[in-house]
Amino acid sequence: MGSAIAANLIKAGHEVTVYNRTRAKADKLASVGAKVASTPGEAAKGDAVFTMLADDKAIESIAFDANGILAHMKPGGVHVAMSTISAALSKRLAESHAKAGQRYVAAPVLGRPDAAAAAKLFIVAAGAADAVKTVTPLFDVIGQRTFVVSEQADAANVVKLSCNFLIATVIESLGETMALTSKVGIDKHNFLDILTSTLFGAPIYKTYGNLIADEKFKPAGFAAPLGLKDVRLALAAGEELRVPLPIASLLRDRFLTLLAHGGDDLDWSAVGSLAAKDAGSV
Amino acid sequence: MGSAIAANLIKAGHEVTVYNRTRAKADKLASVGAKVASTPGEAAKGDAVFTMLADDKAIESIAFDANGILAHMKPGGVHVAMSTISAALSKRLAESHAKAGQRYVAAPVLGRPDAAAAAKLFIVAAGAADAVKTVTPLFDVIGQRTFVVSEQADAANVVKLSCNFLIATVIESLGETMALTSKVGIDKHNFLDILTSTLFGAPIYKTYGNLIADEKFKPAGFAAPLGLKDVRLALAAGEELRVPLPIASLLRDRFLTLLAHGGDDLDWSAVGSLAAKDAGSV
Amino acid sequence: MGSAIAANLIKAGHEVTVYNRTRAKADKLASVGAKVASTPGEAAKGDAVFTMLADDKAIESIAFDANGILAHMKPGGVHVAMSTISAALSKRLAESHAKAGQRYVAAPVLGRPDAAAAAKLFIVAAGAADAVKTVTPLFDVIGQRTFVVSEQADAANVVKLSCNFLIATVIESLGETMALTSKVGIDKHNFLDILTSTLFGAPIYKTYGNLIADEKFKPAGFAAPLGLKDVRLALAAGEELRVPLPIASLLRDRFLTLLAHGGDDLDWSAVGSLAAKDAGSV
Amino acid sequence: MGSAIAANLIKAGHEVTVYNRTRAKADKLASVGAKVASTPGEAAKGDAVFTMLADDKAIESIAFDANGILAHMKPGGVHVAMSTISAALSKRLAESHAKAGQRYVAAPVLGRPDAAAAAKLFIVAAGAADAVKTVTPLFDVIGQRTFVVSEQADAANVVKLSCNFLIATVIESLGETMALTSKVGIDKHNFLDILTSTLFGAPIYKTYGNLIADEKFKPAGFAAPLGLKDVRLALAAGEELRVPLPIASLLRDRFLTLLAHGGDDLDWSAVGSLAAKDAGSV
Repeated sequence: MGSAIAANLIKAGHEVTVYNRTRAKADKLASVGAKVASTPGEAAKGDAVFTMLADDKAIESIAFDANGILAHMKPGGVHVAMSTISAALSKRLAESHAKAGQRYVAAPVLGRPDAAAAAKLFIVAAGAADAVKTVTPLFDVIGQRTFVVSEQADAANVVKLSCNFLIATVIESLGETMALTSKVGIDKHNFLDILTSTLFGAPIYKTYGNLIADEKFKPAGFAAPLGLKDVRLALAAGEELRVPLPIASLLRDRFLTLLAHGGDDLDWSAVGSLAAKDAGSV
Repeated sequence: MGSAIAANLIKAGHEVTVYNRTRAKADKLASVGAKVASTPGEAAKGDAVFTMLADDKAIESIAFDANGILAHMKPGGVHVAMSTISAALSKRLAESHAKAGQRYVAAPVLGRPDAAAAAKLFIVAAGAADAVKTVTPLFDVIGQRTFVVSEQADAANVVKLSCNFLIATVIESLGETMALTSKVGIDKHNFLDILTSTLFGAPIYKTYGNLIADEKFKPAGFAAPLGLKDVRLALAAGEELRVPLPIASLLRDRFLTLLAHGGDDLDWSAVGSLAAKDAGSV
Repeated sequence: MGSAIAANLIKAGHEVTVYNRTRAKADKLASVGAKVASTPGEAAKGDAVFTMLADDKAIESIAFDANGILAHMKPGGVHVAMSTISAALSKRLAESHAKAGQRYVAAPVLGRPDAAAAAKLFIVAAGAADAVKTVTPLFDVIGQRTFVVSEQADAANVVKLSCNFLIATVIESLGETMALTSKVGIDKHNFLDILTSTLFGAPIYKTYGNLIADEKFKPAGFAAPLGLKDVRLALAAGEELRVPLPIASLLRDRFLTLLAHGGDDLDWSAVGSLAAKDAGSV
Repeated sequence: MGSAIAANLIKAGHEVTVYNRTRAKADKLASVGAKVASTPGEAAKGDAVFTMLADDKAIESIAFDANGILAHMKPGGVHVAMSTISAALSKRLAESHAKAGQRYVAAPVLGRPDAAAAAKLFIVAAGAADAVKTVTPLFDVIGQRTFVVSEQADAANVVKLSCNFLIATVIESLGETMALTSKVGIDKHNFLDILTSTLFGAPIYKTYGNLIADEKFKPAGFAAPLGLKDVRLALAAGEELRVPLPIASLLRDRFLTLLAHGGDDLDWSAVGSLAAKDAGSV
């Protein structure tokens, strides 16, 4: 994801310095015009810094370490955090950057790597109005549409986590109904065809329905442990805000069952196979 | 629903005799060319009999009573049962009609009254191939597409119940995520706009999302007790087939909470308001 | 159960006529002084009739058939229904007997066959005060204590179903905590010993905890399908009364999973093995 | 709790130095013979250090700060951590003390303050055998029985969290069955009397059943936020070990509902009132 975004920024004429723990990944971008930094801080000296990392831990180290971006960003610089991280960390980043005289925009994205490459991402952005305004032209060259949802940065993260929670719900509910209909003899693809031809025409039903019907969970487009992580972060946001989320609770247990049975390298849609397993069908 | 279907059959040139417990409703169809029967049995003497009733109980009385359709259908006649009934009753009807030398097609529909009026219903049909073949031309004049799913009639009912269970899941999951995002300050319509502009473009998300965001649960397009009934019937089918359905279990409890608080005349989308209530937001 | 109860009534000097579908079972009681009837109705001509049967269906046939007890009980006779049946059927029996000038007491029991033999049952009774008073001396010779809970008969059934629901909850919660503690290396019996030596000293924890720790689910003391039946009846009572029961919903799904994997002849405590299975431990 | 434990150690002839953030609390113990320290580290110089604090955060600061106990314990000293903390923190403490040449025993307790005062606590201990052996004589003067469960310290915390999870399950299941039975007219105390006189004789059912029946949730014996904390920590242990805990998930949502409605200063048994609320009874 990060590479595709960087490439699009370069293509649009921006000067981009990149950093990756695995130097080789950064070097690839050098061939299209990026400078390569040897520390996060070194890559953070421009007007805006984009981060796209796996989880909270990765962001924490890149942000708060001595060689990290907080220590090296210039006053007024904008940190654009595109990863799906916890609302709590997003809040902490907003506060830390403010204290350092820097700015922070949470901007998680919707879309898979191919959408990133095609500059077709959807961006959910939140942060102080001036900061968002500063980076909006950059969003325009990497995504097809930006939704500005709040001046409170972590609100964007809650929206993104909610989207992933909704996708996981689609996976589980397709899993349950396919377990039911297939036990009465209906072919899973036929059932899915009825759904997507009638009321459930969204791509999400097609994509995940086919993965479940085909039981094709490898290679993982989005690995099960990341699915668990996002459901856990949605639950954590709910706990902070005191919002019970019973379907998310159920999904968390499903992901744990999947992982307890060796699902670490499966696509998260494999959660959609558990209902059939409980039904004794597989 | 029944009136619209009958009207379309008449419009296509078929001779139609109608029966309704409330005579006045049947009489309305007389003006467009229907004959009006005074008992179900009297309306059941043609080549095919369509039933469209509220629940199992209603179908049972109209089917099995002395004046009912089983007692009066001619040999080889086809009973087309379009209501959303239990898989168990559908099975019993199939067996009873077979024993009586009659035929039975389960043909529940997807679509609201306006779709019925416009002959745009989706029909999910199951039954013996010859019986389905006999009534297919009739389906063509009342719906836009027929999905034949099985030779076992009750399979169609399981598909239909699964669809309604999936809709209820969409309602609940929108309710939970709106409860979460609105507590962090996001406007419900904005959140819904993000969903439907990106991954969740299906009409079902728009329709129900707006009802939940507007908290507009009256008048009921589909009343909460019917929602509970369909979830219960999905669970009953699951119990018969030994398929655990944890989201359906959760939905059943939600519907009971709604009804316990006077929700009988609310639209079933009101289930989508309970998460916010649990979160102390309303 | 029925045999033990009848034997205690005979021992106390009562004249008892018995009926069992399997004649041989009834004949055994002849040796201790019972008369043997060849139809339920024939066994129903005394002052009180006790029924102890497997489920609603069995009671319905014995009660409502032409040879059944309703047709043959004398005016003022008392039907004492000791089975764990649905609240709905209990209500219907109360109404039917009243209409027939007979009386009805719901009196489900707590205790296993050995308690029945030792006249140590606990009896939960409900019904019109005069009817309960009439049969109280009979309760005294078969049980150790009678709890009269209501003048509305089905209230006793709701209490009994609640007790079984609570036992199933103990089973599931022991299953979950044993799955957790055993995965961190704690022996299941050691864990159980801590529980029962401290806060959870009730026999129910010892009995079911040991069955789960030993994974000894055969022969069934109380078979899993009966467990499912009782949880389903608790849920049905909840639906009638509009009381959501989320733990019962969860238990229903657990029982279905168990049965879908061939658990029909296992003790219901086998539900307590499913958490460990989900955790990948077995 | 901490004061009572310290007092019992002093009474047994041990030399005790105490520390409390609120100096006055520590001073009270001076009157019975304790020395009062002005930092945690100062109180940590003896052969064993006992900590009894509210949560992970409190333990972390007292353990890892410059004035904390890790920095000041002597080689071979034993840190006995009696609080209900996360398994993860317990593991980290074990590792940190080992690295510092110190020893660590996790020893959470079962019992309320009155049991602590009467030296009647139950202690669940885990840690290296020699360390446990060293502090066993101390356990003997503060508790009635010690259960040594593992050489892996955090196992004791998992046991303790499981116990609290089981208590919360009892609360919720009593809440659900009381909601059901009371809606059919049964008095809550009568229902509870049946339970505790028959199968559910453990004190836990009596204590919490009465609190729920009386709706007496203030003052809190154990406040709802602590209940949520412990359920969350049980879930976190389950996540680490990959053990789905569906009842715990359900309880977590219940606690959030309670807290979202102003339940912060209620006893955790108030969770047992939510089923009745969902049922529209209160």
